[in-house]
Amino acid sequence: MKHAVVLGASGYTGAEAVRLILAHPKLTLAAMTAHSRAGEDYADVFRNFAGQSLPPLTKLDEVDWDKIDVAFACLPHGASQDTIAEIYDRVETIIDLSADFRLADPELYAKTYGRPHDFKELLNDRIYGLSEYAADNLRGAKLVACPGCYPTCSLEALLPGLEKKLISPDGIIIDAKSGVTGAGRKATLAFAYSETTDGAQAYAIGTHRHAPEIDQAIHEFAGVKTTVRFTPHLLPMNRGMIATCHVNLNPDVTLGQLRAGYEDRYKRSAFVHVLPEGQIPQTRHVRGSNHCQIGIFADRAPNSAVIVSVIDNLTKGSSGQAIQNYNLTQGWDETLGLSGVGVFP
Amino acid sequence: MKHAVVLGASGYTGAEAVRLILAHPKLTLAAMTAHSRAGEDYADVFRNFAGQSLPPLTKLDEVDWDKIDVAFACLPHGASQDTIAEIYDRVETIIDLSADFRLADPELYAKTYGRPHDFKELLNDRIYGLSEYAADNLRGAKLVACPGCYPTCSLEALLPGLEKKLISPDGIIIDAKSGVTGAGRKATLAFAYSETTDGAQAYAIGTHRHAPEIDQAIHEFAGVKTTVRFTPHLLPMNRGMIATCHVNLNPDVTLGQLRAGYEDRYKRSAFVHVLPEGQIPQTRHVRGSNHCQIGIFADRAPNSAVIVSVIDNLTKGSSGQAIQNYNLTQGWDETLGLSGVGVFP
Amino acid sequence: MKHAVVLGASGYTGAEAVRLILAHPKLTLAAMTAHSRAGEDYADVFRNFAGQSLPPLTKLDEVDWDKIDVAFACLPHGASQDTIAEIYDRVETIIDLSADFRLADPELYAKTYGRPHDFKELLNDRIYGLSEYAADNLRGAKLVACPGCYPTCSLEALLPGLEKKLISPDGIIIDAKSGVTGAGRKATLAFAYSETTDGAQAYAIGTHRHAPEIDQAIHEFAGVKTTVRFTPHLLPMNRGMIATCHVNLNPDVTLGQLRAGYEDRYKRSAFVHVLPEGQIPQTRHVRGSNHCQIGIFADRAPNSAVIVSVIDNLTKGSSGQAIQNYNLTQGWDETLGLSGVGVFP
Amino acid sequence: MKHAVVLGASGYTGAEAVRLILAHPKLTLAAMTAHSRAGEDYADVFRNFAGQSLPPLTKLDEVDWDKIDVAFACLPHGASQDTIAEIYDRVETIIDLSADFRLADPELYAKTYGRPHDFKELLNDRIYGLSEYAADNLRGAKLVACPGCYPTCSLEALLPGLEKKLISPDGIIIDAKSGVTGAGRKATLAFAYSETTDGAQAYAIGTHRHAPEIDQAIHEFAGVKTTVRFTPHLLPMNRGMIATCHVNLNPDVTLGQLRAGYEDRYKRSAFVHVLPEGQIPQTRHVRGSNHCQIGIFADRAPNSAVIVSVIDNLTKGSSGQAIQNYNLTQGWDETLGLSGVGVFP
Repeated sequence: MKHAVVLGASGYTGAEAVRLILAHPKLTLAAMTAHSRAGEDYADVFRNFAGQSLPPLTKLDEVDWDKIDVAFACLPHGASQDTIAEIYDRVETIIDLSADFRLADPELYAKTYGRPHDFKELLNDRIYGLSEYAADNLRGAKLVACPGCYPTCSLEALLPGLEKKLISPDGIIIDAKSGVTGAGRKATLAFAYSETTDGAQAYAIGTHRHAPEIDQAIHEFAGVKTTVRFTPHLLPMNRGMIATCHVNLNPDVTLGQLRAGYEDRYKRSAFVHVLPEGQIPQTRHVRGSNHCQIGIFADRAPNSAVIVSVIDNLTKGSSGQAIQNYNLTQGWDETLGLSGVGVFP
Repeated sequence: MKHAVVLGASGYTGAEAVRLILAHPKLTLAAMTAHSRAGEDYADVFRNFAGQSLPPLTKLDEVDWDKIDVAFACLPHGASQDTIAEIYDRVETIIDLSADFRLADPELYAKTYGRPHDFKELLNDRIYGLSEYAADNLRGAKLVACPGCYPTCSLEALLPGLEKKLISPDGIIIDAKSGVTGAGRKATLAFAYSETTDGAQAYAIGTHRHAPEIDQAIHEFAGVKTTVRFTPHLLPMNRGMIATCHVNLNPDVTLGQLRAGYEDRYKRSAFVHVLPEGQIPQTRHVRGSNHCQIGIFADRAPNSAVIVSVIDNLTKGSSGQAIQNYNLTQGWDETLGLSGVGVFP
Repeated sequence: MKHAVVLGASGYTGAEAVRLILAHPKLTLAAMTAHSRAGEDYADVFRNFAGQSLPPLTKLDEVDWDKIDVAFACLPHGASQDTIAEIYDRVETIIDLSADFRLADPELYAKTYGRPHDFKELLNDRIYGLSEYAADNLRGAKLVACPGCYPTCSLEALLPGLEKKLISPDGIIIDAKSGVTGAGRKATLAFAYSETTDGAQAYAIGTHRHAPEIDQAIHEFAGVKTTVRFTPHLLPMNRGMIATCHVNLNPDVTLGQLRAGYEDRYKRSAFVHVLPEGQIPQTRHVRGSNHCQIGIFADRAPNSAVIVSVIDNLTKGSSGQAIQNYNLTQGWDETLGLSGVGVFP
Repeated sequence: MKHAVVLGASGYTGAEAVRLILAHPKLTLAAMTAHSRAGEDYADVFRNFAGQSLPPLTKLDEVDWDKIDVAFACLPHGASQDTIAEIYDRVETIIDLSADFRLADPELYAKTYGRPHDFKELLNDRIYGLSEYAADNLRGAKLVACPGCYPTCSLEALLPGLEKKLISPDGIIIDAKSGVTGAGRKATLAFAYSETTDGAQAYAIGTHRHAPEIDQAIHEFAGVKTTVRFTPHLLPMNRGMIATCHVNLNPDVTLGQLRAGYEDRYKRSAFVHVLPEGQIPQTRHVRGSNHCQIGIFADRAPNSAVIVSVIDNLTKGSSGQAIQNYNLTQGWDETLGLSGVGVFP
């Protein structure tokens, strides 16, 4: 049994991490922190935990690190790197759900996040934890940077085609859509119910911070350079994310070959499933689960295709993949604690 | 390990039963039936199961009963009693999620459901499985009638007050609200998205079939006669149910005594939680879980109170309580396979 | 042509008033105020007004009162009375959408709203504008207090029965449900999309400020004293409100007589419609309109009935009724500018 | 005053046409037909019309054509052409909301809709009524084919750039999203609330019938040939449509020039508004209105841009544009009966 702390347990990714750890057969939730809500009963912060026996919600400096094996850092970027640097030598493993260690290049981090990266030496050691592609490197890793939700969703859809040179690195357009939980737990007018329900919109067109992360990961895992065109949308749903990837097939590649390449790549994957021909993924089928469903389709123009993938942004897109990554660091079955299917309907 | 069949796996309660059985440590899903969709891949019926290894979806007569210990019957009323009578001697335990064995009086059944009850002898043996009240009788039971969703939600809120003579059996008004999944998986205009979203309504006012069941269960468990006034509503949400119970306190009973009575009744309950003073239950906090949360409040008129309870209609209101009941028939910990908290947000 | 100012145009009731005034054949929108957003383009505050030619959004003291005939005050309570006192002699008519002049008794106001009423002399002159009941008094009125949304919805359902002595003033229970816009335009975590969607809850049980207003209006219009038991709920929808009124019939009154009484009362009403037997009102059918639909049903217990009414909380529950009231002060057809039916679906 | 019949009044576009005609100052609703629901009170078909004085719902052959000036045909494709041919000589003007007269080439129609076009001679006379582009031709037109919802939304976003040679006809990708009302009023499991809410999906990828219509209209109005890549999505909202158009700028065209071109094209448009720099259109701001809002953005790759447009699929995307087109046939102000802004929130 390993003992876990969840840092930043008062946000949505923190709560999802707590929910998943409670169901994990080899993890014990030993501590939880929340800067501004320390001292409160966790069930007062998230009432779905009423009646559960849980450790107290404390401040960071109240954690007894001798009793902790792994820290799941569910903190805002910036705060995350500071905290991780502080605890780096006191825990065996750190799984970071923030953006702080995703970008390998500190200059790119500074440009993208508007602040310098203060712990460049840690960047060298971190593993970028897109589980299906980093599995071999995760064994024994100390610091894992979990990918963003959009990169996870997009990369599962794009990497097999790029790895196998079935699709062109040029002209990739990712038209992505997310549920509102992706915005975090905040009192913001833009995410108020009456401003968000029964309507939809794009946002951060051409400027979203996850776009350079996608280019970086494509380079790391498929060895090609890209400048993906990336437009996210906000949809009136809680959890769920779609990446609709508009791509060009390489010369002489057929849609059948494309499909075969994806089926081959994911045939042993526990979480990523290529749907049969004609079936289109729906976010609701992966809700609350660590699954990713992928569909592959021809478009109207010659040599064009659409690859669609769906995940739950809080699970495979964040806390679920975090658990999956920790399982992989330990050499455990990657599905431990994550075997549940989507909660549908 | 016990082996289960889910009868009627193509409906929502069937799918929820399958989901929960897959996560149960002492249950193996050995077979699934669905009359009209036999032969299909279950992932084509419910795509959240894509990638799962599952038994084939068959017709009833294809089930190898020698390999089945328990049948979860998720069939429409009428069909359920016929099927249960047919398999009664071939399985150890039958957990019926339909309405067919809920009402002990076959005349009342006939009047309520518009058809005669054809298996009155089985009615004598069945246990009405409101788990928190029937636990002692469930040990070793062969046939368990799981309560309806509205009765479950209402009774958890009303029974402690009635048992302990804190509230009057007269003048009980249950104003209940349900998510749309309670209507089942049907292509019906009334439950089409555009006719159901962003709006609310009452239905079946004064005539809902669950009202006599509530009276019956109050009589069975609290020993008093009632004619509850019961008005259900349909809300634009998927899962979730509220029973807002407007009650009269008995003479000289204070709200503090009422609260104390409820806290005492449920203090050892794994699933039913009385919230602290001032906290109001929300359906979203029990979504996807077997939990029930209860709040207790004074109303404006003298000696009047409001007791609110929330459940997930598909889980505690149906398939979750079915699993809980099976656990109790086996003498297992009632939380086996049901320990997950609500999926929030 | 009368010239109107909307005070507090940056909230939802303000925006609804602006939308309705723009469509009114005898009203010109001459000015709009918004304390904190003065100077902004109104289309930047509410983008549904993009492309419309509108007066500038100003501070209160920038309004040229010589050009204003009527002020629609869409301000928070407290601020409303201060502003109304200040402008009282400068405009012909004031339609107050806030709570400040609803309660005739300043002591009750102080107790209910937690602050003294500073303009008791104005209270004497105000008309409580439940349009269908106050029409005769509204002609020529200077200050109209528009009822709260819950009182409007509840009173339309209760008053005919009480006026005509068909239902008892004792034991009235109003189980009400509102869409989220009723909470106003605020950045509050409790009304964030992810905390509000796909779930439901009661709130302010036994303590809501609209309950004493309902008692007062019943006394004013039906001449009987009540202590209504009132429980509001928050539903995952934008606009819409239901009052499910659980009532007792007076001795020897039949449901047919009850229905006849309501049909008679509203037979000439432009906005309140009693639905045919068996039809249950749905909020979505009055969305965006000034209509109220009422259904009448027997309940299970002897002499018990359920009267259900639905409105759009922002229209008949607020800004629509405000326009209707202004029409009545002018002796105009009450439907001017309000003839649109519900936007369904 | 002109007299209108709505053919097919029992569907959503029919109901929207009825709603808009009732509010039109120069149109009287003289008749309504609905094949299967003839003889019913319209308020029983759409309860938002309760209390309205409306003509009876009849069969087609009960219409007194001597009293009809204009027919709004809200029928399924196929049925529409048959009906229009039958009534062609009996009415002054026919506004067809179906797909039957959208495609000028009967071969393309046959291929796209899977049945032959039986009235090719009528095709020659019809005007394709994308109002902002066809206005000059609509004056006096007898038969107007109203564009599909996706074509309307997409073309408003694409045509100015193509007309003015600011964007390339090559590589246009339209990633479109629609609310559920676009599927019509049907009892279909795929559009049941529980299968449609709180989730999203693409559909008809590369095969949607509106794609060839978009190519045709681009050719008609901008004189260039295209093969747009078109992927629609179904979102959990009632009304609303987004076309996110991913385009390539022509050489040496700047984003500022692109924006200026759009602002110039729509500067006198009553319904199409180019939002200021940085503002992103949201469907909820045009809900229930005939407006279209457009936003223009740079994407990450060189010379790439994103043009987003939003409409209400039932209004500007169907019945609203139908009214606008009729206004234009009569030489009236195109905004007659359509001046309302979006119902937000």
